[in-house]
Amino acid sequence: MSVAIKPPHVPPDFPARKLVNLPQPLRLYRGGLIAKPVVAYESWGRRSPADDNTVLLFTGLSPSAHAASSALDPAEGWWESMIGEGRPIDTQRWHVVCINSLGSPFGSSSPLSIDPASGRPYGTAFPLLSVEDIASAAREALHALGIARVACVIGPSLGGMTVLAYCVQYAHEVDALISISGATSASAQAIALRALQREIVRSDPEWRNGAYEPGRGPRTGLRLARKLGTVTYRGAREFDTRFGRRRVAEPGAPDGEPRPFEVESYLEHQAERFSQVFDANCFLALSRAMDEFDLAEHGSTLAAAFARLRGMHSLVIGVETDILFPIHQQRAIGSGLEAAGAEVEFHAFPSEAGHDSFLVDLARFEGAIRGFLARR
Amino acid sequence: MSVAIKPPHVPPDFPARKLVNLPQPLRLYRGGLIAKPVVAYESWGRRSPADDNTVLLFTGLSPSAHAASSALDPAEGWWESMIGEGRPIDTQRWHVVCINSLGSPFGSSSPLSIDPASGRPYGTAFPLLSVEDIASAAREALHALGIARVACVIGPSLGGMTVLAYCVQYAHEVDALISISGATSASAQAIALRALQREIVRSDPEWRNGAYEPGRGPRTGLRLARKLGTVTYRGAREFDTRFGRRRVAEPGAPDGEPRPFEVESYLEHQAERFSQVFDANCFLALSRAMDEFDLAEHGSTLAAAFARLRGMHSLVIGVETDILFPIHQQRAIGSGLEAAGAEVEFHAFPSEAGHDSFLVDLARFEGAIRGFLARR
Repeated sequence: MSVAIKPPHVPPDFPARKLVNLPQPLRLYRGGLIAKPVVAYESWGRRSPADDNTVLLFTGLSPSAHAASSALDPAEGWWESMIGEGRPIDTQRWHVVCINSLGSPFGSSSPLSIDPASGRPYGTAFPLLSVEDIASAAREALHALGIARVACVIGPSLGGMTVLAYCVQYAHEVDALISISGATSASAQAIALRALQREIVRSDPEWRNGAYEPGRGPRTGLRLARKLGTVTYRGAREFDTRFGRRRVAEPGAPDGEPRPFEVESYLEHQAERFSQVFDANCFLALSRAMDEFDLAEHGSTLAAAFARLRGMHSLVIGVETDILFPIHQQRAIGSGLEAAGAEVEFHAFPSEAGHDSFLVDLARFEGAIRGFLARR
Repeated sequence: MSVAIKPPHVPPDFPARKLVNLPQPLRLYRGGLIAKPVVAYESWGRRSPADDNTVLLFTGLSPSAHAASSALDPAEGWWESMIGEGRPIDTQRWHVVCINSLGSPFGSSSPLSIDPASGRPYGTAFPLLSVEDIASAAREALHALGIARVACVIGPSLGGMTVLAYCVQYAHEVDALISISGATSASAQAIALRALQREIVRSDPEWRNGAYEPGRGPRTGLRLARKLGTVTYRGAREFDTRFGRRRVAEPGAPDGEPRPFEVESYLEHQAERFSQVFDANCFLALSRAMDEFDLAEHGSTLAAAFARLRGMHSLVIGVETDILFPIHQQRAIGSGLEAAGAEVEFHAFPSEAGHDSFLVDLARFEGAIRGFLARR
């Protein structure tokens, strides 16, 4: 993604962002209520009169709804080459809606929003967020916009989990799905890594139990957590090729200390950028939601949950070097859908960039997505 | 390893630990000097009159020299089933010396030692430590004990790096080596993970630029760094099998928060134990040494460095699920030795426990080590 660096915890401005005030309070999946829910989104292309061409896009944990540039916001989006005229998600045919996840700092209701009960930002008083809520907020937003059906729901990473949460809750309103490096539930190792990231944030004294002032907060904790995230998002072979043991060019400390490695400088750059635009309480809520998600809760067994997706046209993509959403989890999504009688196209890409390959190794993903959508 | 929990930064007491005061100051590999070097060790078995039966054992970053129990200290050691009468490293034949790494808090000269220049603990004034120094301190200790030759030098993890550092510096004094999940240099991903661990420790306000009072220090930072270490030491499949998505048994918070996952509790236990016995400045020094190690510095090329090991009888063991010292690095050690004309036995074990398999999947390691030593 490419977002301008702003002062901490001031969400960046996205000129193309649109807001939907949902007409009803939003009841959350694990209890809790958002009294005045707002969903931020961006859109590209035009709705067909028959309401049969909406592609719904969910994001990973970090990005905003600015997936691609538009006349309203010419800045490059996080999936710029994927969306547009003649692109894999071709806006000459499709009406694309990218949803900013509930809980994210980039426009939708989140810990940064004003709690009507207190008149102050929710902070840690934001009710326990689930992936199902990201899906249901999006669904209510579409309905508020008069969109009753989704031709295809797409998402990578957290967005892939959200695709499953959307389809299992609203299967009768969806024709097709594209799951990219998602999971029916987090692996124990992914839980360990994300729980550690959250503890790192909360261990920063500036977190102040979540009651930091807007514009302040646990910047160091967020920076360290993002470094850990970045390592898990990428590939070991990719790091060896890109960075190896090269050192940064600056001279070492005066006492002859060896210079830092380039890979350290790369992590610093990624983490600094993230910690300047992302809110800590939002991070904690979204990260936690990923660990708590379990598709199997939507049936007596996981297979029973998948059975709700019978007949869904499905494209499932995973990456062999992904350590956070490993390839066996992608195969499990594919075989779960198949066992439920869904039509499944499955790809295990050998990309070297790990979990983030959908942002990097674009040719492979573009080809598969273009082909799948062309057959719809 | 199994060490008693003590107040922070008070090194545990190991009754069998012996100390060698080296007769000369120790000049370090990257400059710097330790004026009054001490090396801690434990030993098992008896030296042969011909001085041809010493097995030298190096450790990973965390353990002390207490690799096995003895009459002096019946507590279980970190490699208990490997060393003893009739065990794979059979003390009826071998005289086993396990060295506490220079820089470790468990007895050898380290940031906890008194700096003769100041009369206070070195702390961050401890000179820049290299893996080569761990090796040379051990070699000087053996010489001080009157041991001129090593029949076999063994080590896992950091110990595996130390085996290479020992052999490349003192090849003419060594007959055989066993490298377990070591590396000729750290991968970029391993550097990223360890550099992040160190930054987590240094970001704890209690670190105070390394000038914390003895018995205090960055306990939280050390605990978080150890959690990250523990994730990287183990295997993803193992975590799924051992922990999956199970929750701890304690009731949740009163507001109905979901209970923590078992894997979080496991990490907490490991990290708490480590942070109670390990010193932060020692951790920083040893971790840094692992990133800086590069066998290729010992020749014009890596192949030239390996050429110094010509004729060395070698056993190289790696684990396919190791993410910290990945299997391709083990193959590189094996092929580097082979290209140098060393005799190499290589094993790539499919153990599920990742880097820590040498502590867990003992049957495989015991069989290989027993067989190799029996043929010496």
